[in-house]
Amino acid sequence: MSELRKDPIVERWVIIAAERGHRPSDFKAPPEPPQSGGCPFCEGNEAMTPPEIYAVRDGTAPNTPGWQVRVVPNKFPALAIEGELTRSGFGRLDRMTGVGAHEVIIESPNHFDDIPAMSSDHVALILDTYARRTKDLRRDERFRHTIVFRNYKGEAGASLTHPHSQLIALPFIPELTRQKLNSAREYYHRKERCIFCDLLEQEMSMPEQERVIYCNDCFVILSPFAARFPFSVEIYPLKHSHDFVEMDAATQLALADALQFILGRYKETLSDPAYNMTLQTAPNTIPRPGHWSSITYDYHWHLEIFPRLTKVAGFEWGTGCYINPVAPEAAARYLRTESSLPRTDNQ
Amino acid sequence: MSELRKDPIVERWVIIAAERGHRPSDFKAPPEPPQSGGCPFCEGNEAMTPPEIYAVRDGTAPNTPGWQVRVVPNKFPALAIEGELTRSGFGRLDRMTGVGAHEVIIESPNHFDDIPAMSSDHVALILDTYARRTKDLRRDERFRHTIVFRNYKGEAGASLTHPHSQLIALPFIPELTRQKLNSAREYYHRKERCIFCDLLEQEMSMPEQERVIYCNDCFVILSPFAARFPFSVEIYPLKHSHDFVEMDAATQLALADALQFILGRYKETLSDPAYNMTLQTAPNTIPRPGHWSSITYDYHWHLEIFPRLTKVAGFEWGTGCYINPVAPEAAARYLRTESSLPRTDNQ
Repeated sequence: MSELRKDPIVERWVIIAAERGHRPSDFKAPPEPPQSGGCPFCEGNEAMTPPEIYAVRDGTAPNTPGWQVRVVPNKFPALAIEGELTRSGFGRLDRMTGVGAHEVIIESPNHFDDIPAMSSDHVALILDTYARRTKDLRRDERFRHTIVFRNYKGEAGASLTHPHSQLIALPFIPELTRQKLNSAREYYHRKERCIFCDLLEQEMSMPEQERVIYCNDCFVILSPFAARFPFSVEIYPLKHSHDFVEMDAATQLALADALQFILGRYKETLSDPAYNMTLQTAPNTIPRPGHWSSITYDYHWHLEIFPRLTKVAGFEWGTGCYINPVAPEAAARYLRTESSLPRTDNQ
Repeated sequence: MSELRKDPIVERWVIIAAERGHRPSDFKAPPEPPQSGGCPFCEGNEAMTPPEIYAVRDGTAPNTPGWQVRVVPNKFPALAIEGELTRSGFGRLDRMTGVGAHEVIIESPNHFDDIPAMSSDHVALILDTYARRTKDLRRDERFRHTIVFRNYKGEAGASLTHPHSQLIALPFIPELTRQKLNSAREYYHRKERCIFCDLLEQEMSMPEQERVIYCNDCFVILSPFAARFPFSVEIYPLKHSHDFVEMDAATQLALADALQFILGRYKETLSDPAYNMTLQTAPNTIPRPGHWSSITYDYHWHLEIFPRLTKVAGFEWGTGCYINPVAPEAAARYLRTESSLPRTDNQ
């Protein structure tokens, strides 16, 4: 089983997943090319994955063809679903057993499908699957936080080209999430307002809306003021909501629309770049024995997406500070289209 | 001039360096191959760089051949050395002018030189150059922190193959440095001891020394307990010291020895991988008007080095949590040699 270890200085948890099939000597040779033969995520190859956890099917039997979205356990999971969560320490060195969930959301039966080209209904189905799996995993008392992420192309960490996302449930709240939650909480305590809502209000009310890329009835796509990477974007629900899983069907469709807009623009204007997408939603707040139950209504969920265009190098790894060679306002001008902003009184 | 912006949620400074010569449309095409013709860092091509700031020369004139180590301004600096440091804010959005220093330390006149193959005296000269440039830049009241880093090979962010390091002086203390300083300070306040010294003591006194890779009279190379990346290492002075620039000549030679050991082992055992190296030393503590002068004797400087063997993907970017597929103890066993550990009473 893998192990969770906490850095004794910067207090960051790391997953030591030595069982994912790597021996030290594996790194000596260049990585093997993906095996030829069938893609395990393609319709008809259901037997090539572990048995499915969830699927959108029209009456067909599990683990057979005839599905639209399918969720399976990751074959090389970073964390194990079975096992007790135990904690131990020795001097300054803290550990936990590596329990968690690691699932793959196969987004389409079709190997060559791609989010911008799908029907909005199908994209909404994928988003609904993210929400259902998150909700289901939250019932497990061991898990404190769930993250859904999408790695597109090998440069962004994808090992298979068939469209898919992944989900990892963690027995702790990770560092970045904790920072964001703390920021939202402190601000709320001081102001009785959501920090994200205030920022959205500020961005939307500026005469030029210079960092707004796209708006529909429910969502806004922003080019973040202090973006770390060129052309990175954040998608926020316009109406305050701390939890992704609470979206109704109409809101899911509106998110599908926003997602298809930005991924389509990446494809058109940046030569189909590799990208990472991550879902930043509230942690698991279901009360459980021995845990402080944190209410996180002051949080505001969002998606972060960025194309992999620059290299992260020594400066960034050594400081936590990033160099972005494209001004966020220039990125917004480049990514938006004639009709992507709503008419306002200022225009 | 570039601009510093602070993320309003996670409070992380970012350098928006839109003048480094990138337009949004540049990202549409794949990056250009390095220009053919002369390498600007080679001896004889001194006119291809901006005029030198410092060089180790045996009586030869500046910007001519006949040097061992040469420091020049970066031709595409992330921050500008000229200009006033001004701060401004609008709502939640904080900015500073992008003043700072960005220098290149050309480590050898020879294009094909490499740290493991150099004489130890020459490596010590490079380390001495790091220290001299850091000391000099600290006299500038605008600068709060200096980081030296080395990107080896394109995959690690190097754009030229000629052996070189870089140095950036910042007008703020970056996030990672602040976390480490805070950790050291809190621990010292509670215990009157250095947290790093205590960790080294714990690692060195374990019967198996399972995370110790190498030791000489002055330095230890550790495989960190919660390493984020496979085969990453940290090099610590055994004797408490908060500041890299305080090393005497004998200590510089001992660090050269440790550095050559580990970079040589990377080369031999991991097929000459790309790597990043960063120097983590105390910030600029020279008192200046309008600043809280922070005394950082409780810090313990160190080097961090890691080969670029795995991809950082959506999970890591979305959580700040890393998945390391090689146990730090296995990495230590793999990297150390018969004679790299001192005999102890336990063996």
